[in-house]
Amino acid sequence: MSFTKAPFLLLGVSLLFSTPSFAKEAGADEIGPAKAPSRPKNIVIMIGDGMGPSYTSAYRYYKDNPDTEEVEQTVFDRLLVGMASTYPASVSGYVTDSAAAATALATGVKSYNGAISVDTQKQPLPTILEKAKSLGLSTGVAVTSQINHATPAAFLAHNESRKNYDALALSYLDTNADVFLGGGQKYFSPELLEQFKAKGYQHITRFEDLASITQPKVLGLFAQVQLPWVIDEKEAKKLSTLTQKALSLLSQNDQGFVLLVEGSLIDWAGHNNDIAAVMGEMSEFSNAIEVVEQFVRENPDTLMVITADHNTGGLSIGANGQYSWNPEILRNMSVSSDTLALAAINGEQWQADLARGLGVELSAEELTGLDAARMQGQETLAIAIRHLIDKRTNTGWTTDGHTGTDVQVFAAGPASELFNGHQDNTDIANKVFSLLPKPKKPKN
Amino acid sequence: MSFTKAPFLLLGVSLLFSTPSFAKEAGADEIGPAKAPSRPKNIVIMIGDGMGPSYTSAYRYYKDNPDTEEVEQTVFDRLLVGMASTYPASVSGYVTDSAAAATALATGVKSYNGAISVDTQKQPLPTILEKAKSLGLSTGVAVTSQINHATPAAFLAHNESRKNYDALALSYLDTNADVFLGGGQKYFSPELLEQFKAKGYQHITRFEDLASITQPKVLGLFAQVQLPWVIDEKEAKKLSTLTQKALSLLSQNDQGFVLLVEGSLIDWAGHNNDIAAVMGEMSEFSNAIEVVEQFVRENPDTLMVITADHNTGGLSIGANGQYSWNPEILRNMSVSSDTLALAAINGEQWQADLARGLGVELSAEELTGLDAARMQGQETLAIAIRHLIDKRTNTGWTTDGHTGTDVQVFAAGPASELFNGHQDNTDIANKVFSLLPKPKKPKN
Repeated sequence: MSFTKAPFLLLGVSLLFSTPSFAKEAGADEIGPAKAPSRPKNIVIMIGDGMGPSYTSAYRYYKDNPDTEEVEQTVFDRLLVGMASTYPASVSGYVTDSAAAATALATGVKSYNGAISVDTQKQPLPTILEKAKSLGLSTGVAVTSQINHATPAAFLAHNESRKNYDALALSYLDTNADVFLGGGQKYFSPELLEQFKAKGYQHITRFEDLASITQPKVLGLFAQVQLPWVIDEKEAKKLSTLTQKALSLLSQNDQGFVLLVEGSLIDWAGHNNDIAAVMGEMSEFSNAIEVVEQFVRENPDTLMVITADHNTGGLSIGANGQYSWNPEILRNMSVSSDTLALAAINGEQWQADLARGLGVELSAEELTGLDAARMQGQETLAIAIRHLIDKRTNTGWTTDGHTGTDVQVFAAGPASELFNGHQDNTDIANKVFSLLPKPKKPKN
Repeated sequence: MSFTKAPFLLLGVSLLFSTPSFAKEAGADEIGPAKAPSRPKNIVIMIGDGMGPSYTSAYRYYKDNPDTEEVEQTVFDRLLVGMASTYPASVSGYVTDSAAAATALATGVKSYNGAISVDTQKQPLPTILEKAKSLGLSTGVAVTSQINHATPAAFLAHNESRKNYDALALSYLDTNADVFLGGGQKYFSPELLEQFKAKGYQHITRFEDLASITQPKVLGLFAQVQLPWVIDEKEAKKLSTLTQKALSLLSQNDQGFVLLVEGSLIDWAGHNNDIAAVMGEMSEFSNAIEVVEQFVRENPDTLMVITADHNTGGLSIGANGQYSWNPEILRNMSVSSDTLALAAINGEQWQADLARGLGVELSAEELTGLDAARMQGQETLAIAIRHLIDKRTNTGWTTDGHTGTDVQVFAAGPASELFNGHQDNTDIANKVFSLLPKPKKPKN
């Protein structure tokens, strides 16, 4: 991409300051809407981890009201502007992991799978959040994984391996970021927490304490590792609440801010081939997008850009030769397959409980299969429940890893048209870099 | 969609005649490019049957030059403007077949799976080609399937079932279309051909006779049913040649024309889960797109809109937990798995021939598997060869049918910005309808 990126970027930036090809068609002088700023003051980058095109399509049908003839549009339909390729540096082939993808999105440079904002020579690469901070903007992350997981880590830190969780947590001390919200208590020792407090961070671990935080800096860690599945706490609205709080804290800076929001567990559910958990995570990621959309409406100097880092699981809407996808069971489920399996392992009335949790009647054949799986323990039973759901919904998967299909790009706000059409994931970062304020020249 | 379609269309049409939201930003009066017509004179609709997002992504990596660090962009990357949902009328659930999808794309109305431009009450729906013809434009189709297969049929005719091939062929007599190019000799009896000739059609069956056709009307049927796999005749460039000829014939009408081009066999290869055949068909569909792109460059009053009718096979780039996709074998293959299997059934040196055809050395384990499959006949051997290729490339599939993932939309030429962002497949048709000339008012 190194040869094609430069002209693409030039095109993108020039779009901001020149006339699009259809601008002169008719009435351009007479009836234009109110002038919007061409550069955003604030930028919100949102990543649906693993959220390929099949995810947003499936979500539309999951959310569809079956009592109406039409299929209702989703927030993704409303905001779609383009797509992006996701391949990593050539040393890692064509299928990216979350670390290389996040490095591309955070720095504009492709690296090897596993890299946290270092290049293929393991040298650190400047990130969007670092650049923003150096320019006087506030920065923050709000995610559903541990805050030192690959995606947020690549926006904040540098390491030759995504697996160095402790080192990444430690390195967050030097970021000067204003808002850290997500999971990951286990990576922050009492000693490390003391260091954060010494730097002025408020440290909280109870979700209900979030309301008491009224100004930066904050280190909010609400789970040992990742937050719970959304499907297991449908009313908690955690990611959208974290997003709302991050916006309210970061927008106190008159210079502007850059916020990263990640629906991290869409990917984790995809790795588990767990379509019910995927839909739950998508639902709350959508809620978070709507929070940001509302912020953009109220603050028209804010740009929001949404994408996925890659596609997970080879999810397909329909499988096995059947031309159908039946999300009813997903709409009825009240808890995750993991929780259902845990309860079934311990429960005496497990068959009735499981049927109730799934919101369906189970056939004798299905119960026989589940009984055999239950004998082998909770994890095997959870997998069997997911297979049952796949069969009932007619959902397909090809892998418990990632795939190389392009992902979508969604945007709104000033300069959002820069993201129209096809682009590489590195282009997204480079466009965002181009929209950050220029450094102030030192006065002579 | 019936409720959301109307405002979407209004928005679309108003875009043509008003100011886009970023038109007034800076310099709009000074440096706009040469004024392009806001309505096209000619419209080329191109459909990659079954060509979901994984197909265009995989094609990029298949075409990548491994000797360079960058991944080269494809024609699809260059032309991407949006995406489209593909679900049929609710009676058929969320996963469409080619007939309902083609009906949506040809008429702007959703119908049941199997419908050829009839509504759910089996009443005929006006099609884009019919409307264009009634307005004095020329019309034509250039496809790689039989010309009376579901997609072209829905643009030309009406029938309660796509399976009524003979009735569809007969009904083409009444379309007055100027160009029919593709396969399907078996559906056109000598008597029917006489009727076409009586209506002024030149009838040809030899591909090399195409050069002798210099004016409409033409009925060119170059195969009993579908054209051969592209991978079996890499240099033939049939679809792009048919497309070039169709453009040259149809553009003789000063009033303008509407042409449908379909890469029909992308879908057939997808149904077979045959990634090598998919790449061959994609390659020639790309050639056809480039022919139309060149025509648009030379005739800036021509709009080209490209989409897929649906996704086929649940194709994934990477599978089975491996983060890789290895298209080398696809680049080396000289013939299709079908042709390789046929030769291997009959050949004495079949192991060496097969290895040569695949361009690889085969392991003892692979040869053992192929030998067992060969005992069961050509079809089983062809499937075994495809499985071997899937394993070597790490390609995944979930079905031999269709899936419900949204498809991409590509466009260039006047009014191409109408197709930006998300839309439904019916919206595509309704936008094209809105771009056809208005009927001339009768003089008083």
